[in-house]
Amino acid sequence: MQDRIWTIHLGRHVGERVTLAGWLHRLRRLSGVSFLILRDRTGTAQVVIEDPAILDLLDGCQHETVLCVSGEVVQEAQAPGGVEIRHPAIEIVTPVADPPPIELFRPVVQAQLPTVLDHAAVALRHPRHQAIFRLASAAMDGYRRTLRAEGFTEIQTPKIVVSATESGANVFEIDYFGRPAYLAQSPQFYKQMMVGVFERVFEVGPVFRAEPHATARHVNEYVSLDFEMGFIRDHHDVMAMLTRALGGMIGAIREDAADAAALLKLALPDVPPVIPEIAFSDALDLIWRETGEDARGEPDLAPAHERFLSAWAQREYGSDFLFVTGYPMVKRPFYTHPDPARPAYSNSFDLLFRGLELVTGGQRLHRYADYLAALDARRMTPDSLTGYLEAFRYGMPPHGGCAIGLERWVAQLAGLDNIREATLFPRDLHRLTP
Amino acid sequence: MQDRIWTIHLGRHVGERVTLAGWLHRLRRLSGVSFLILRDRTGTAQVVIEDPAILDLLDGCQHETVLCVSGEVVQEAQAPGGVEIRHPAIEIVTPVADPPPIELFRPVVQAQLPTVLDHAAVALRHPRHQAIFRLASAAMDGYRRTLRAEGFTEIQTPKIVVSATESGANVFEIDYFGRPAYLAQSPQFYKQMMVGVFERVFEVGPVFRAEPHATARHVNEYVSLDFEMGFIRDHHDVMAMLTRALGGMIGAIREDAADAAALLKLALPDVPPVIPEIAFSDALDLIWRETGEDARGEPDLAPAHERFLSAWAQREYGSDFLFVTGYPMVKRPFYTHPDPARPAYSNSFDLLFRGLELVTGGQRLHRYADYLAALDARRMTPDSLTGYLEAFRYGMPPHGGCAIGLERWVAQLAGLDNIREATLFPRDLHRLTP
Repeated sequence: MQDRIWTIHLGRHVGERVTLAGWLHRLRRLSGVSFLILRDRTGTAQVVIEDPAILDLLDGCQHETVLCVSGEVVQEAQAPGGVEIRHPAIEIVTPVADPPPIELFRPVVQAQLPTVLDHAAVALRHPRHQAIFRLASAAMDGYRRTLRAEGFTEIQTPKIVVSATESGANVFEIDYFGRPAYLAQSPQFYKQMMVGVFERVFEVGPVFRAEPHATARHVNEYVSLDFEMGFIRDHHDVMAMLTRALGGMIGAIREDAADAAALLKLALPDVPPVIPEIAFSDALDLIWRETGEDARGEPDLAPAHERFLSAWAQREYGSDFLFVTGYPMVKRPFYTHPDPARPAYSNSFDLLFRGLELVTGGQRLHRYADYLAALDARRMTPDSLTGYLEAFRYGMPPHGGCAIGLERWVAQLAGLDNIREATLFPRDLHRLTP
Repeated sequence: MQDRIWTIHLGRHVGERVTLAGWLHRLRRLSGVSFLILRDRTGTAQVVIEDPAILDLLDGCQHETVLCVSGEVVQEAQAPGGVEIRHPAIEIVTPVADPPPIELFRPVVQAQLPTVLDHAAVALRHPRHQAIFRLASAAMDGYRRTLRAEGFTEIQTPKIVVSATESGANVFEIDYFGRPAYLAQSPQFYKQMMVGVFERVFEVGPVFRAEPHATARHVNEYVSLDFEMGFIRDHHDVMAMLTRALGGMIGAIREDAADAAALLKLALPDVPPVIPEIAFSDALDLIWRETGEDARGEPDLAPAHERFLSAWAQREYGSDFLFVTGYPMVKRPFYTHPDPARPAYSNSFDLLFRGLELVTGGQRLHRYADYLAALDARRMTPDSLTGYLEAFRYGMPPHGGCAIGLERWVAQLAGLDNIREATLFPRDLHRLTP
């Protein structure tokens, strides 16, 4: 089986006898001649069967039977991809006795989402579903390659922690040898500590949010693409680095998953060298002027505001992306750095992409005294944060960073209605399996 | 601060005025002239201070104060690295008021391990500790690059699960919205399921083991480098792929972390194109013949056996690596594929590296009926495994894979006494912070 070729390379072997291996995607038995579609990780190939003995062999073999097919590669304009396999010899590698719970040969899976998710082991084999996760894989690779080229060091920080990053409410509790501990909501504290070691760090790993929401936009475990960098002037240095990382993610999809993007009929966005920016307070003014809705004084943007601003950026700048900067301090976590010129506002940003907020980031406090004051102002005790605060007590440069939720990013890029379609095995309020 | 250069590039700028930024690593005040060592992520630079006003400025600034230093780059044979900064202007970016709990300027940290771990935010800044995690970062990169080049797709699978991979005892329990769930001991089930989707998959992510051991070789959360591949002949295809992955990991260290390896004075191993192999039963025979110790009939190797076999492979083949294959089925998990010729033994392997078992892997069962029989034989119920077993019910090719524990691998490569030195923020029986 080692000398098999991929179906996608079939065109290179016209006139040769080759071996393919994969899954019985479909078998159409016609009167004179039958057509078998074999699927491997790269695509499908049409196999023409004229020998009744082979059809007998396949009797009782359901879709998804694993096969090894040897045969002659012939050009055939009518075949998908312009080539097909003739005069095959077929070996049944793993027979399948029962019809699969999802019909994979249809262009789009017909089942409802809960059924798809229940049968993920089968449903993910569908070319459209497979393509979604090829985008995710390429995006992770592009993210890492870009940041490594920028001098970032990859880290892996603990997921079992004793202190929540954000508010204390939405954490999963775990029994750690009889002691209470929590699942990390983000690597925030650790990536900041590691700025003291490597100056520039990134992490790709799971984060856990015990938010009791059942919406199309929430899952309770997801993959976070984090980075954090030291010696910045302000949040604009973070925004510039994020822009390059996004360019690397889209670039990697163009390079390594172009066929997946084509199968999903995606219009991949161009990441401009500089993404347009609007200040939070200017954004609310703009919304007021253009829509008559007066949200000035609100501490955050509503989803409708995000959609309006994205449409505006598209009209005004032809950009799928828009940075909104300078959110009010009141809605940002305690480690947020204020804008020195307007201390009620922060050196922070959100990135909107086609109407949705996809990335949050900003500059962090770096002086020890500022941390003690910020915790005191929020009536938080520094006790459980000793190891974190030590980084600042012993010298930290101005720094900042951000986090991209991978599944949400892929879902928005692919225009999916539900983040669960971009999550391999989603965990939500009701779902813990498979 | 954006126009700063790295200390490692100082030699390129002789005769120029440059700006550096980093931490006050050491300040030696002598009578006529003082020497300041500035540390950044790439190394250190010596700054010569003759101006008493600058020394006054630094009065009260402890080690780890963050500085911006501009000055002239001068060749000086006596300086570390052959260059130094003269006539500096110094800006204090972040002052440090208290002496750090660990003296970072010493060649080796003098504190005991628990103290080092308690003060990780500072201790990890020590060049030796920093170098250990640069090895880890490079190794992860080499692993991924090798497997991507071999057609593997990267996946991220859930860490909150309902069924333990191995035995049920050593899992951390979590409260999942009032329901019991567990932290994944390994991505085993999910990576197998994904072989049905992508044929070749890998994952780099955390795994959690609630083993109540307090040894130098155990931590309870670590980073696992997993891969799984379909359409194999047997475990030897997995071993060949692992050999290439190890070559990529060592190669990436040589390319991207050569200075870290040099600082740690490591002799990096050569990964031979084919790593020598000995069958488990032959290994016990060999031990019996050469040492007189009769362990024939034992189901597993003791640590002393692993050390003996590694020394033997070094003598016999000049290899730091040795595969031991064909472990008895009785000690392997239920999904292990037996050796068709000797069903009491498995198509499995361990990889020994310099006396220590570092990787476990093998061929897995792929037929649905074999899974049902294996579970039945172990009196396990398939109920919680429905989603996993569905992959096999609907067609899986012969497949196999393995897992490398990153921290253990780095610790053995760097010759560290304790795996905690190769773990960023270790979690063990007694330690949950920082």
